[in-house]
Amino acid sequence: MKRDARPEAGRDARIVRITDVARAAGVSPSTVSKALNGSGSLRESTRERVRDAAERLGFVSDAGARALSMRRTFIVGLLSTDNVGRFSLPVMLGAENALTVGQISTLVATARKGSVQEQHHLRTLVARRVDGIIVTGKATDHREPISVPVPVVYALAPSTDPDDMSVVPDDAAGMRLVVDHLRTLGHRRVAHVGGRPEHRTSQVRLASLRAALDEAGMELVGEPLLGEWSEPWGRQAVDVLLRGGGAERPPMTAVVCASDQLARAVGDRLRERGVRVPHEVAVTGYDNWQVMWEASRPPLTTVDMELETLGRRAAERLLAAITADPENHSTDRGIELVPPRLVVRGSSMADD
Amino acid sequence: MKRDARPEAGRDARIVRITDVARAAGVSPSTVSKALNGSGSLRESTRERVRDAAERLGFVSDAGARALSMRRTFIVGLLSTDNVGRFSLPVMLGAENALTVGQISTLVATARKGSVQEQHHLRTLVARRVDGIIVTGKATDHREPISVPVPVVYALAPSTDPDDMSVVPDDAAGMRLVVDHLRTLGHRRVAHVGGRPEHRTSQVRLASLRAALDEAGMELVGEPLLGEWSEPWGRQAVDVLLRGGGAERPPMTAVVCASDQLARAVGDRLRERGVRVPHEVAVTGYDNWQVMWEASRPPLTTVDMELETLGRRAAERLLAAITADPENHSTDRGIELVPPRLVVRGSSMADD
Repeated sequence: MKRDARPEAGRDARIVRITDVARAAGVSPSTVSKALNGSGSLRESTRERVRDAAERLGFVSDAGARALSMRRTFIVGLLSTDNVGRFSLPVMLGAENALTVGQISTLVATARKGSVQEQHHLRTLVARRVDGIIVTGKATDHREPISVPVPVVYALAPSTDPDDMSVVPDDAAGMRLVVDHLRTLGHRRVAHVGGRPEHRTSQVRLASLRAALDEAGMELVGEPLLGEWSEPWGRQAVDVLLRGGGAERPPMTAVVCASDQLARAVGDRLRERGVRVPHEVAVTGYDNWQVMWEASRPPLTTVDMELETLGRRAAERLLAAITADPENHSTDRGIELVPPRLVVRGSSMADD
Repeated sequence: MKRDARPEAGRDARIVRITDVARAAGVSPSTVSKALNGSGSLRESTRERVRDAAERLGFVSDAGARALSMRRTFIVGLLSTDNVGRFSLPVMLGAENALTVGQISTLVATARKGSVQEQHHLRTLVARRVDGIIVTGKATDHREPISVPVPVVYALAPSTDPDDMSVVPDDAAGMRLVVDHLRTLGHRRVAHVGGRPEHRTSQVRLASLRAALDEAGMELVGEPLLGEWSEPWGRQAVDVLLRGGGAERPPMTAVVCASDQLARAVGDRLRERGVRVPHEVAVTGYDNWQVMWEASRPPLTTVDMELETLGRRAAERLLAAITADPENHSTDRGIELVPPRLVVRGSSMADD
């Protein structure tokens, strides 16, 4: 496409303020701030509108602005150990969004073959003189810290070193949202279907579910069913649950699943066994994965981990660390939890 | 993780030959070559073993070796316009694999918001002095060429300029593999369910299916059903197809689908309508997407586009262009088709 190479050079010189974004999106400045930080409870359409306006206008966050004011251009490394990409990709995109507005480029390296390949990538990134590195993993299991001479932020999978900077989804809050929703609808007996029992994600979600149910005075029916992160396991789990019921009705009125893939399979199998969703049994998922929630009958109520927001926060913290006063190393350590969002659809609440 | 920073520095100095990879993988050198180029018909397990051995030993392709022999380190830009990532991610990973072995780093930029953002990214990549750019898109629709002063290879979505270098999946070959498989099993009447009619992918797959059926003396039953790339549409299409049949039996013995998502939904709906898969009607997909083929009952026979091979080829061609004799610009233009692979599972052939 032939066009003037720098159509926006003049515009770039002017600083876009939060009030400009607010005006363009038709919202208040505090809503802009909430939308871009992923905090507060906003409608997704509002959040989207603000993000679009911010991107369109080239709005630069505080950290990005500080980077620009130093008149440096940065290169940031992004090390991923995810060979699937479904989780780390939105994190990468969020990071990229946060970084690009400040004229920062991202060198990406994917280590799928274990630590030798990872060491190789890290040496390359350091040799390329990156200003910092974001490490993103495939699960929210803790991971060993990396040893490099530049600032590092761990996204999705936190570092085992509590003094490192990590940004992770708040799964406990996610399960509280689910339980609160079900409690409001009158549910008291809830079953749980989860993925691989050795995964930290499975353990955290189950423990959070137990705590939230206790607090709400609700009951976890039978043993929680942990197995695989797959649809065949989700369907099998339903057969186990229905065997536990009386002759006439299921022993639970809701099934809380640890992923959308499981929830979709649970819904499918309940329907096949003649149990009406959500009228007899409500089903909830986790991930807000469109492929799954859309194909489910009815579409899934689920938890969105806000992974793009998570990636954006990781990038902002990295930029802050890169541009920070070198005398002041103590700030901004530890784990930051990104609040999730409940998306209510037909699998928990009938339209009629 | 603390360890010697350069444990393999000594080993790097020695050139790994194709015969070394062959020995490590327990295959012939020509098998290594086939496996790494994605050509020939090898078992996937063999291909995997060869790739693992090549990666473990740090085998460097011809183009990579030429780059190394010039004692340059390269930075390559990767511009993606895919906001889903399911298709462009394996392409990126394949490119990264090909590039990393030659100590080449990848700057990634994702343009999801149209051409203004894309222009911004391209200016940044050029300002970063990348040696070349791979452009990868979300569909195999043609795209406008980009205008930059470095070599460019288009992966997945070919450039509209036939003089550009593009590497794309060979969908015509994929449909021929499907039809040939069904013909061998004795099928003669085949229906087609596809995605959005305005997508080039839909048109190419349908045209290829028609041509392959003609050649095999087989019949396309009724009108091809193009709609959406979604499961709800796949299920709806089955209801349309069964309406067309007689009172007793479906009008076709096989349904060829343009994606695994559609095939999974077609299989689900056929089962719900009491049609046994594959005994009464065989179903085939396209993509070899594990989430879908694994959840299907029975698992899907499908076409694997070999997207990682495609990414690797794009990277190799880019490296070849970067390191080429500048006097000789005429080589290696035009579209390269990457051969797909048929994966046979239970949705077309019963185990019993």
